[in-house]
Amino acid sequence: MSEQLKGRPVAKAIYNEVRTALEKAATTPCLHVLMVGDDPASQYYVGNISKRAAKVGINVEVESLPADVSRQALLQRIEALNADAAVHGVMVQKPLPSHIDTAIVDAAVNPAKDVDGAHPLNVGRLALDRETLVPATAQAVLEILRHYGIHTAGRNVTILGRSAVIGRPLANLLLYKNEPGNATVTVCHSRTRDLAAETRRADILVAAIGRPRFVSADMVREGTVVIDVGVNQIEEGGASVYVGDVDYTTVTIKASAITPVPGGVGTVTTACLVRNVYYAWQRMKKIDR
Amino acid sequence: MSEQLKGRPVAKAIYNEVRTALEKAATTPCLHVLMVGDDPASQYYVGNISKRAAKVGINVEVESLPADVSRQALLQRIEALNADAAVHGVMVQKPLPSHIDTAIVDAAVNPAKDVDGAHPLNVGRLALDRETLVPATAQAVLEILRHYGIHTAGRNVTILGRSAVIGRPLANLLLYKNEPGNATVTVCHSRTRDLAAETRRADILVAAIGRPRFVSADMVREGTVVIDVGVNQIEEGGASVYVGDVDYTTVTIKASAITPVPGGVGTVTTACLVRNVYYAWQRMKKIDR
Repeated sequence: MSEQLKGRPVAKAIYNEVRTALEKAATTPCLHVLMVGDDPASQYYVGNISKRAAKVGINVEVESLPADVSRQALLQRIEALNADAAVHGVMVQKPLPSHIDTAIVDAAVNPAKDVDGAHPLNVGRLALDRETLVPATAQAVLEILRHYGIHTAGRNVTILGRSAVIGRPLANLLLYKNEPGNATVTVCHSRTRDLAAETRRADILVAAIGRPRFVSADMVREGTVVIDVGVNQIEEGGASVYVGDVDYTTVTIKASAITPVPGGVGTVTTACLVRNVYYAWQRMKKIDR
Repeated sequence: MSEQLKGRPVAKAIYNEVRTALEKAATTPCLHVLMVGDDPASQYYVGNISKRAAKVGINVEVESLPADVSRQALLQRIEALNADAAVHGVMVQKPLPSHIDTAIVDAAVNPAKDVDGAHPLNVGRLALDRETLVPATAQAVLEILRHYGIHTAGRNVTILGRSAVIGRPLANLLLYKNEPGNATVTVCHSRTRDLAAETRRADILVAAIGRPRFVSADMVREGTVVIDVGVNQIEEGGASVYVGDVDYTTVTIKASAITPVPGGVGTVTTACLVRNVYYAWQRMKKIDR
């Protein structure tokens, strides 16, 4: 049976770090969240961020915009927040309604306040290994590896999923010339010819595809470290439950260590997002040179 | 014996494309190159660009600055060129002297004129699969694959080298959801544990590490397509010669296809750089939104 890589102690250490720093600085940074429409999952996520942030001394303002808000009206709100010196972080909660181009919204947020790390300038700075605001989920994966002493140097890390928010930034981070980094990184996806052959080569397997229990025991070699980024809501036994991209029950028997869902990567992601607000407050003047 | 993937016909097609478009537009775009010091390899490369560009109707201005130019003076020249409407592309030739921070110079060039694709904003746009100026060498690799009908979808592409100018952008491009792309991409480097095991898995092997004849026949599986990005100057038999990162003589026996050095990727890189000037002229207003 594998070691369970719980997110809670990792998140706790991050919250402590932020609270201590903000107490010392005697300041209360502010994150402003723009929510378009009323997606329940988004409301839950943002509610959680607000609660966690409050505990470490960060104020979260949540502003709801109607689902049919025009692109122009949304961009005008972003502009106002970009210019507001009392706002340190700006987050536009995704998914956005289909009439709004997410790429344009991402590029509209002041890079210095971009706590999601979605602005092209920050994505580029990440790819170039320069100081930036790193997407919270990618950070969370690295924080879990670091916390549990799982080294990446020279090891085969296979990432399942090539998304711009997780798979690709994580691949970049794992190629950095410092720990966690120096990994041999393979990125697989729906077009990969023999997926099981790829996942079985992994010393560390990161699943980030958004398909419930997709990774089965036969896709995992004995002793692999499995990091499950997926959070999929499914109906089961008449109830609505959250499961990962990994079939936990069977994979845990072969893995040497595995993150649970819920209570794994997601828990740490929230902490990293909150810390990004602190980073944005701290570095606002340094990022956008 | 393998098929030789010559760069010349690929480059020729690119030059024809640019010349035809510029003749039609009846315009002569301008590339301004800043050279710091007198590195002979840089002078050769820039001289070659000037010659090729002239033939397709692009004007290249080469400006030499002393090796001890101050960072501020260099940045002031860049600012002036950024603002000059008669200049469509700005290139600062590397390597720069050690007293000048390359990262600051890269971020100083107007992203719309950044024909090297080195500005963090353009690096980010590449990572996000948005229209941008793509580094010429990475483009060259894809152009060769396309020209010779070598498909990448679902195939294992192993990239040897994780540099910010070749390995990492190429990995991103090969993960795009179109051809050439959809590859399963592995990035290897000096910290990879069992390099030969990785390179032998490749359907397509791209060597970009800058080590003369590093890839030997035992590192390559029968039938692999080998793309050699390296250009290394070595002394041999009393003469100075250019060789790639691949030991061509032995690897060509096993490979199904291979690029020569010289006359392979480098030849196409020059063409892609020249085309980037055309792209910059064409898209100047679209890039920097």
